[in-house]
Amino acid sequence: MKTFITDNFLLRNNYAQRLFHSYVESLPIIDYHNHLIPKELADNKLFPNITQVWLYGDHYKWRAMRTLGIDEHYIAGQAPDKDKFEKWANCVPYTMRNPLYHWTHLELLRYFNIDTLLDANSASDIYAQTSHMLASEDYSAMGLLRQMNVESLCTTDDPTDSLEYHQTLAKANNDISVLPTFRPDKVYNLSDSEQYKSYIKKLELACGFAIMDYESLLNALSNRIDFFHYHGCRLADHGLETLIYVENQKFNEAKIFSKALAGEHISLQEQQFFTFKILVFLCKVYNDRGWVQQFHLGGLRNTNNRLLGKLGPDSGFDSIGDFSQAKMMAQFFDHLESTNELTKTIIYNLNPADNEVFVTMAGNFNDGSIKGKVQFGSAWWFLDQKDGIEKQLNTLSNLGLLSCFIGMLTDSRSLLSFPRHEYFRRILCNLIGEDVKNGLLPWDEKWLGKLVSDICYYNAKNYFDFSIQ
Amino acid sequence: MKTFITDNFLLRNNYAQRLFHSYVESLPIIDYHNHLIPKELADNKLFPNITQVWLYGDHYKWRAMRTLGIDEHYIAGQAPDKDKFEKWANCVPYTMRNPLYHWTHLELLRYFNIDTLLDANSASDIYAQTSHMLASEDYSAMGLLRQMNVESLCTTDDPTDSLEYHQTLAKANNDISVLPTFRPDKVYNLSDSEQYKSYIKKLELACGFAIMDYESLLNALSNRIDFFHYHGCRLADHGLETLIYVENQKFNEAKIFSKALAGEHISLQEQQFFTFKILVFLCKVYNDRGWVQQFHLGGLRNTNNRLLGKLGPDSGFDSIGDFSQAKMMAQFFDHLESTNELTKTIIYNLNPADNEVFVTMAGNFNDGSIKGKVQFGSAWWFLDQKDGIEKQLNTLSNLGLLSCFIGMLTDSRSLLSFPRHEYFRRILCNLIGEDVKNGLLPWDEKWLGKLVSDICYYNAKNYFDFSIQ
Amino acid sequence: MKTFITDNFLLRNNYAQRLFHSYVESLPIIDYHNHLIPKELADNKLFPNITQVWLYGDHYKWRAMRTLGIDEHYIAGQAPDKDKFEKWANCVPYTMRNPLYHWTHLELLRYFNIDTLLDANSASDIYAQTSHMLASEDYSAMGLLRQMNVESLCTTDDPTDSLEYHQTLAKANNDISVLPTFRPDKVYNLSDSEQYKSYIKKLELACGFAIMDYESLLNALSNRIDFFHYHGCRLADHGLETLIYVENQKFNEAKIFSKALAGEHISLQEQQFFTFKILVFLCKVYNDRGWVQQFHLGGLRNTNNRLLGKLGPDSGFDSIGDFSQAKMMAQFFDHLESTNELTKTIIYNLNPADNEVFVTMAGNFNDGSIKGKVQFGSAWWFLDQKDGIEKQLNTLSNLGLLSCFIGMLTDSRSLLSFPRHEYFRRILCNLIGEDVKNGLLPWDEKWLGKLVSDICYYNAKNYFDFSIQ
Repeated sequence: MKTFITDNFLLRNNYAQRLFHSYVESLPIIDYHNHLIPKELADNKLFPNITQVWLYGDHYKWRAMRTLGIDEHYIAGQAPDKDKFEKWANCVPYTMRNPLYHWTHLELLRYFNIDTLLDANSASDIYAQTSHMLASEDYSAMGLLRQMNVESLCTTDDPTDSLEYHQTLAKANNDISVLPTFRPDKVYNLSDSEQYKSYIKKLELACGFAIMDYESLLNALSNRIDFFHYHGCRLADHGLETLIYVENQKFNEAKIFSKALAGEHISLQEQQFFTFKILVFLCKVYNDRGWVQQFHLGGLRNTNNRLLGKLGPDSGFDSIGDFSQAKMMAQFFDHLESTNELTKTIIYNLNPADNEVFVTMAGNFNDGSIKGKVQFGSAWWFLDQKDGIEKQLNTLSNLGLLSCFIGMLTDSRSLLSFPRHEYFRRILCNLIGEDVKNGLLPWDEKWLGKLVSDICYYNAKNYFDFSIQ
Repeated sequence: MKTFITDNFLLRNNYAQRLFHSYVESLPIIDYHNHLIPKELADNKLFPNITQVWLYGDHYKWRAMRTLGIDEHYIAGQAPDKDKFEKWANCVPYTMRNPLYHWTHLELLRYFNIDTLLDANSASDIYAQTSHMLASEDYSAMGLLRQMNVESLCTTDDPTDSLEYHQTLAKANNDISVLPTFRPDKVYNLSDSEQYKSYIKKLELACGFAIMDYESLLNALSNRIDFFHYHGCRLADHGLETLIYVENQKFNEAKIFSKALAGEHISLQEQQFFTFKILVFLCKVYNDRGWVQQFHLGGLRNTNNRLLGKLGPDSGFDSIGDFSQAKMMAQFFDHLESTNELTKTIIYNLNPADNEVFVTMAGNFNDGSIKGKVQFGSAWWFLDQKDGIEKQLNTLSNLGLLSCFIGMLTDSRSLLSFPRHEYFRRILCNLIGEDVKNGLLPWDEKWLGKLVSDICYYNAKNYFDFSIQ
Repeated sequence: MKTFITDNFLLRNNYAQRLFHSYVESLPIIDYHNHLIPKELADNKLFPNITQVWLYGDHYKWRAMRTLGIDEHYIAGQAPDKDKFEKWANCVPYTMRNPLYHWTHLELLRYFNIDTLLDANSASDIYAQTSHMLASEDYSAMGLLRQMNVESLCTTDDPTDSLEYHQTLAKANNDISVLPTFRPDKVYNLSDSEQYKSYIKKLELACGFAIMDYESLLNALSNRIDFFHYHGCRLADHGLETLIYVENQKFNEAKIFSKALAGEHISLQEQQFFTFKILVFLCKVYNDRGWVQQFHLGGLRNTNNRLLGKLGPDSGFDSIGDFSQAKMMAQFFDHLESTNELTKTIIYNLNPADNEVFVTMAGNFNDGSIKGKVQFGSAWWFLDQKDGIEKQLNTLSNLGLLSCFIGMLTDSRSLLSFPRHEYFRRILCNLIGEDVKNGLLPWDEKWLGKLVSDICYYNAKNYFDFSIQ
């Protein structure tokens, strides 16, 4: 079989090919949101085999394997690494039309120079070949990033995190900047009283003073934001079903917090109110610091409690929700805007039926102060595939301005996911190229080259300002 | 005018043509969900003219005719069959771009070998020609199915049904297996007290004992499920706006049932709770029996009461709803999963805005035990057209696994609807072929041939196991 | 650079080109819904420069400029007209893939015969050239409409409007018919007590009698409908988040109105109920008069109160909502249908996720009495672009009947927006042409020519009957 991933993979005409190869193929990567493990980077970890760097923790692959009727033993279970890889290899041909099929072969090609299709027949050779290569320094954690021309990246970190690995990395004066992101979801998650109290204990340890009441909680959060800021953090991130706005303040956030510390029952309404109050506080502090705030909205998590009990969260039992998003999102941003405290913001949407709501919402709060201040974020999670990316780009184009878009991120737990930037860049160049071919855009190569370069690199570079302390 | 439905209708390139003609065109049909009338099959009915077999009961055509301003007299009214046919023929050119236009000409070609376009001019000849042909045994109810290479089919039947026609068909040792489906919607529909009480009377007659209380209701249902199982039923089906999960059991299902029997008012909340309790009971029995359970979700029915009063239900006054689906669906399946009693399940979605929710929900409950255990069902009702089918296939591909899909069904009341399987197969092969042409899939003919054959026939064959008693 | 907007712009094959150029290019325009200012038409206003006729009041352009970080001074602020134009010209290349890019160049070409791309370099010349041309009578308000072959148009007018400009225009015996539309949104907007009371005062002045109670309010509305009817009005229009149906009448509309006049607080539920009651009353009067009623549904308005306070409504801070539409819409229409008082109706949808809900809802109330009685309206506002138009046309085709569609309108405040009809016609012909090329439709030129002509002109002509008094 001839090579599947050709030079012009996804690029259906000359315009697209020209834009990709001449303008964006070689641009560095700013991966401003991912879930890489800082310790692995600081340790510059080497991986004994491809299973550990490719299959461990990858719930995308796990879901596919479960759908194909593979026993959990070979998925998140105790089977030997080689057996797990072979089971996965067996599944690969069955993933055709799913992004896993493209990712799989793009990753094998870019990192390992393997252009054989992965299946039951090729599994053993590929396992041996990749294991051999992974032993080399080029395939260490930082080596893998260097191979992909990564300039900077932002991990996702809890406010209680010591950032020790980020500090190690900073001291090492790496060519790749590894920065933390402040993700305070646990601060407003009151659903489990015991977990919450122990989380507050961790937060006390991190900030070094007692958290006795709501006021000291806010002090602790400010303290940690300062700490994160000092270590280069310029982004916050939040995972929520929806943004929240509560009009009538019949509740009191300080009392709710006291009840939480006392282990008393907190109603769903109180939880909502508390989340709203904490978020507003945090967003105002982000605005003071000049940070970018991110909101990942629309996920329905932890749906299968039987398997969750066995395997824990983030194991592949989350899905897409269909929450009402528009009204409270508008009210939440309006509330911050009313005191002119809405900082640069990225809203990510998990249900593509809401794409239009999200794009036009961003437009409501773009006030002329900064180019692309409120961003409709890159196609996220389940939507991170050709069709989802095209829908995100097209909706943004039609209802907003594509030219201001800050582009792609991996959102991944895996060091082998960085070709997703290439995948995105090819899709983007192809859309533009097809428009030119169809007479929808004039062929002004220089301008279109600038347009795609901005989206793939320069817009993010300008938007985030990681270099400014 | 040259023939409109050519051999390569819908097949836009050589890959698509090859996959269709060499791999799936001749596969038998397993029509695992439809609304055919068992009596017509058992009687092997002959139809006096095309109006009776094609227009009677076809609310798709009725809606189109009403939109075109045709008087009800010619639709569901008392006009002579020939006049009705001519009115419909007049309408056909106005249905261009609607699936009716393709179905009409595909059905005329496949059953009657007519490739003239139907319109005012051709109506009279086509009426005469088809009436003549319909008199032959090849055009009896079973003959029509044989023409289409139907291997097995599942009708949709009430728990009170005697299944006498299924028994007749089974005894006749036909080459086509006609099996019942258990559809208990009336069991949990408490909206009309008188109708409900008379339904329970029918259920008493069917099971042969008195239904005095909730416990005997459950016994009656188990009894009927056993009876259906004995007669080859392996599927249940349910039509609901949404799945239901009620957390706090402030109600009591036994008391609600007693109130219903006493003709007392049942609140909407009580109706919801009762439906939830009955469904959970039924789903656990299905799981015991190894059945497949189907849920048709998202329809908004009986919207136009003035015309409903004249014409009755299923006459063309139902539409697509926009209910919140995700949360309660997750909770309902989680509830069954918590005791490991979630059987094989198919969820059908009527609002394409929810396609992504449904596909990812199926993924949450695919646990590795069976290939494709929870299925995102085929494009349903209003969505059963090229665009709707492509969206269903693409969403399933991008967010789940196309390779595990059990494929098409007619969902039809008409014996002339079976070319919808051909229509689906052409669309599927075309999607795959276009992907190959665009470099999105490698051209591995044997593998892709297996993939489309599985989806068109073998996956359903393995999934349902109709042969095992 | 060669001309961007060619003769075959958007027309990708010979079938499409033939249909457009031979059948619809020269058809007159019936613009049955827009927001033109009647005074400008009656005065036959001349514009001193392109900024005033093109940028003033165009919140589509304003949103784009704000997203690009342009200071409000150059948008809705006090900057000189030439500076505003130059800022806009700078932005134009950044709007690629947004409909603004196509509209901009189509409008420059059709009105001013300019085929240079607008950008920083060409801005000054284009400003000078257009200013010169705008001084000529061909570029007066009526001249601009004549250039576009407008036959009739409907403005949008408050019930209190004197219609003096419509009367002036009628007396002038223009070749272009300018008719009012009755838009009573303020009649049922009780959210601001002071504004409401002063609105009722205006209504008293308009109808010439005191409005003391609910009964006299209804009389006033009937009176104004008669007045509008006398001046040629045959349409009503309503802007709502959703249609409303309130089942249990625990409220009393007369009491709510008295409370409103007394400045008492009106709860949200009371506001809903009052709106429902007024709408039902109005719709029955429209039905008596044989009017067409329009509903623009799904907008989320006035989201950014800080900028709203500075710039007022309709300045670019509205977006797309995600309200539940189906159930109450069905109930509202069913309520009117129950007494056979549902008049011809157009429902416009702002959230494309609801397209399928809207199309199938229209089908529920098409009762055979009139061709296309209930219409799924043209792609509206944010959706008025190639992708949005194609989605509207495709959904209508697949789930309803494209052949009955009454087609395009500008919905615009600008006299330069009429090439949107050409844009629509090209997109429509291209869709049909592509279907023919792909074998989805037979090439029956005469029939397809009739189909597109009907949609672009004749269906609207028959549907509205503006000529009948």
